[in-house]
Amino acid sequence: MHAPVELADIAADVLARIRARRPRVHCITNTVAQQYTANILLAAGAVPSMTIAPDEIGAFVGGADALLVNLGTFDSERKSAVGAALAAAESKPWVLDPVFIERSPKRAQFARDLVGRGPAVVRLNGAEFAALTGAEAEPPDCFARAHKTVVAVTGENDVVTDGQRSVTVANGDPLMSRVTGMGCAGSALVAAAAAVERDAWLATVAALTALGVAGEVAAQSAAAPGRFASWIIDALFSLDRATLRARAKVS
Amino acid sequence: MHAPVELADIAADVLARIRARRPRVHCITNTVAQQYTANILLAAGAVPSMTIAPDEIGAFVGGADALLVNLGTFDSERKSAVGAALAAAESKPWVLDPVFIERSPKRAQFARDLVGRGPAVVRLNGAEFAALTGAEAEPPDCFARAHKTVVAVTGENDVVTDGQRSVTVANGDPLMSRVTGMGCAGSALVAAAAAVERDAWLATVAALTALGVAGEVAAQSAAAPGRFASWIIDALFSLDRATLRARAKVS
Amino acid sequence: MHAPVELADIAADVLARIRARRPRVHCITNTVAQQYTANILLAAGAVPSMTIAPDEIGAFVGGADALLVNLGTFDSERKSAVGAALAAAESKPWVLDPVFIERSPKRAQFARDLVGRGPAVVRLNGAEFAALTGAEAEPPDCFARAHKTVVAVTGENDVVTDGQRSVTVANGDPLMSRVTGMGCAGSALVAAAAAVERDAWLATVAALTALGVAGEVAAQSAAAPGRFASWIIDALFSLDRATLRARAKVS
Repeated sequence: MHAPVELADIAADVLARIRARRPRVHCITNTVAQQYTANILLAAGAVPSMTIAPDEIGAFVGGADALLVNLGTFDSERKSAVGAALAAAESKPWVLDPVFIERSPKRAQFARDLVGRGPAVVRLNGAEFAALTGAEAEPPDCFARAHKTVVAVTGENDVVTDGQRSVTVANGDPLMSRVTGMGCAGSALVAAAAAVERDAWLATVAALTALGVAGEVAAQSAAAPGRFASWIIDALFSLDRATLRARAKVS
Repeated sequence: MHAPVELADIAADVLARIRARRPRVHCITNTVAQQYTANILLAAGAVPSMTIAPDEIGAFVGGADALLVNLGTFDSERKSAVGAALAAAESKPWVLDPVFIERSPKRAQFARDLVGRGPAVVRLNGAEFAALTGAEAEPPDCFARAHKTVVAVTGENDVVTDGQRSVTVANGDPLMSRVTGMGCAGSALVAAAAAVERDAWLATVAALTALGVAGEVAAQSAAAPGRFASWIIDALFSLDRATLRARAKVS
Repeated sequence: MHAPVELADIAADVLARIRARRPRVHCITNTVAQQYTANILLAAGAVPSMTIAPDEIGAFVGGADALLVNLGTFDSERKSAVGAALAAAESKPWVLDPVFIERSPKRAQFARDLVGRGPAVVRLNGAEFAALTGAEAEPPDCFARAHKTVVAVTGENDVVTDGQRSVTVANGDPLMSRVTGMGCAGSALVAAAAAVERDAWLATVAALTALGVAGEVAAQSAAAPGRFASWIIDALFSLDRATLRARAKVS
């Protein structure tokens, strides 16, 4: 296992690699979260693209380093975009974010089918994870093992497991839940991390730690969600190794 | 009739209930306004959802406490989403925001048809109201009485009437018209208020007073629309009874 | 040719006319950039609209003073919206922004076809310009002359040419590339300028100078992209002749 300080350093390394290599992350995501997701990726150093047009999504995914599949605003065009994107993704890492599947049985079924297509990471909240596992109510590590993926169940504390290794990331701030698209943007940051770190579990821990620490830094000066939404972008843009070491709560 | 101070207190009560009950508000709205609308709802304490997919909008509306039907970016998919949403809404309150109908005769006709479907509230600006009533040019209170709805015609002053009761809300700041989606977000806040206050007229007065007062608070420190857009979210998030009492101009 | 100080004055004049006349700018643009584009236009004094619905886009373009055709998020609905919009635009100025055509051969071909439809201005970055000209690799002034349009190739320095007159606008800040939709919003501002200045080359120089100077003013107090995104809106809203004269770097 990794010691907490080691994981903070890995988060700093992953951020440094994103800034240096500027990975391209293609995002199939809902229109509510598109702008915020793109701005989080740009602040981290990655290059977002977001088309879902069937004619060209293959070319975009083919030129990308990682892919995000977010199921929010789940229309038919997006559904077919997912198929085309996964066909083009080949061995590139992709992250599944099954937004709001607890509200929509059809969306939940689509998410279950997608888990079988081999995402590197599934990032979701507790209600979404319950909807994904359904009546079986598997714990995250069993689910990760069974489906050979990394599972990140985010909330007040984030649990990240690949079935063998499990940690809790206790960083973040309650204001993060008052900004629309924050979770979606977090999943996109996981995809950017997975583009520069082949160990998807480490990439996920790094991205969620970085975003949580950035949230804490932002909350020091922004006490309400309007300004907080901008300041967490700035905190992520400026995040350094010393701050990650001082603040990371990964255990 | 209610005295102004009483209406300020009702606005504070409605805000307190939104914060405590966290009503779910499903929004069919244009892609330009989605993010800002979601952030205003989250700042107020409500929980937004925004899918328009025909397969699942019924499930979302079925689990929601109120519905917003905004006609901006009026494509065919959204038109059919409205039908499915209203079928699922049953007796839940819904708010109609007929954006830009003065620019598009087909959109205006669709809005007139929707008024017949029983919205709790119709919120729109003066040009949109003129397009809605057409050649007849009814005053808002007659229109409200004839269609058994609440009409809120917003502008420098907002007129809110259910045909029996009419008030003018004189709060707000000119910068509000320089932020895209502000009116749409205001309509969503009316829907959130209607989810926790069965008297739709009171709910509308409360929501528009709260947003107008938040605008005034934000304008005290933000003199231009970029920062103002964030600061009004923060002012709404932090809005308290004393500020509402001191600033509400409802008569 | 115009002296630099004269061009700074023309930029101030164009801004003043946008603020006074409030031109309507209809934008066919990608969902990622819609909100930011609308807020930049509103801050400058213009009035944005953004529908792409085939039933009504003609009415919107018919009532507009200028049109933006942005090819980001290039779905089939947007493709047909472009045809309907250009049919309704008649002699109104329109700006083509062929986003990301270097990533998608089909989008590049569509952009080449659109150049033949007579845009007043084509605004794009260097990679997009290379994709537009393809193997021929024409310089911007030859391309502008051949296609009777203004070409603005933006980057660290912006080159603006109509084939006869060419200038370099050296204003701006690197943070502008870290805000999603900044280039798209810049193209929309060019369209707003073209609505009030019939010389499309002057309009383009004015808009890009104004946005670049606003970026420099914002960067004086915002050191990271989250706050910068709001502050450049504020700087544009407040931009005055003295600041343009002091800062414009057009040669």
